[in-house]
Amino acid sequence: MTNQIITIGREFGSGGRELGKRLAEQLGCAYYDREIVLALCEKNGLAQQYVENITSAGIQTYYPISYGRTFSTNRYYNNENTQLIVMQQQIIKELGSKSNCVIVGRNADIILREYKPFNLFIYSDISSCIERCRSRENEDNKKSDKELKKQINQINTNRKKSRALVTEIPWGAKEAYHLCINTSNLTIKDYINPVALLAENYFKENEK
Amino acid sequence: MTNQIITIGREFGSGGRELGKRLAEQLGCAYYDREIVLALCEKNGLAQQYVENITSAGIQTYYPISYGRTFSTNRYYNNENTQLIVMQQQIIKELGSKSNCVIVGRNADIILREYKPFNLFIYSDISSCIERCRSRENEDNKKSDKELKKQINQINTNRKKSRALVTEIPWGAKEAYHLCINTSNLTIKDYINPVALLAENYFKENEK
Repeated sequence: MTNQIITIGREFGSGGRELGKRLAEQLGCAYYDREIVLALCEKNGLAQQYVENITSAGIQTYYPISYGRTFSTNRYYNNENTQLIVMQQQIIKELGSKSNCVIVGRNADIILREYKPFNLFIYSDISSCIERCRSRENEDNKKSDKELKKQINQINTNRKKSRALVTEIPWGAKEAYHLCINTSNLTIKDYINPVALLAENYFKENEK
Repeated sequence: MTNQIITIGREFGSGGRELGKRLAEQLGCAYYDREIVLALCEKNGLAQQYVENITSAGIQTYYPISYGRTFSTNRYYNNENTQLIVMQQQIIKELGSKSNCVIVGRNADIILREYKPFNLFIYSDISSCIERCRSRENEDNKKSDKELKKQINQINTNRKKSRALVTEIPWGAKEAYHLCINTSNLTIKDYINPVALLAENYFKENEK
């Protein structure tokens, strides 16, 4: 029996991370998110923020769009940034091979496609995203709605760009996912039982 | 307490109709689909196919795109086709006011928005849609894959056009729905318990 993997793509501020954590808890499996980046940092002895900037954003300005599809060759791997992306993908593959898990972000749905993961995309209207970011904000560093909106859009743009490295299907296009969840109107915990149930059905069908 | 309404938008061949029927059965509520058209026909004494053609497709060739947003005025209501569309909307409103229900298609999510319905969109990859259409086909009237694909695309295009009459958000754009379900990999019955549970959570939250 292959490992049961749930991947979560998400808009910034949509609650995808909380949903992933709660889902992993409910299903009793591993949960990965920035832990992947941290592992990568440790392996390279690099500052976390530096790696985070590189691995989550616009490397495609340096590499042709076909890079993601030539992943198995070494043609474009002549630069530290690219090596970091490759290493992150290797770490994700290792994590996927270890046990059942929920992985948030990092294009894990594409990187682990051989496992036939159950792929979710979490999104929300902009006002809900702003509200969610606001609730997490540091008291000493309050941002205006306009600033938060700009930050949300910037991070989403980076995710779009990062996804374009590994697949032609645009980030957030529903065709790439089994389920797309709009978290504008419900609290995250309301989704956990239904989504866990659906994931279980999915894995049962795919075992056959 | 307001009526609990679930609306289902769907790609042709995605199984949205079966999902809607089973969901209504599970929740013990009314189910509407072509019944709406039939009711409309009876009220007008018109042939069902004629009404179906008008109400599901391209009336926007006769009317400006702003028609949907001027719905409450009588400016454009000088033509039998338009009157039929309006009557269908009235029938949907009547059905929505009567009891809890599941309504498939007919842009019911927009028409009944005052009820805060739980809105689903059901989609599927083209090969699954073809397979599903194939399984429903009449033995005497077999179509090639190419013909089925053409038919599916044509019906989806009509749905797009019909939706453009009532909202600016494109047909199938995930922002308009609470949940988008890709039925390519699971049998429809696998969705019923999870979706029913989620709908119940949604109505519970919205009662508050």
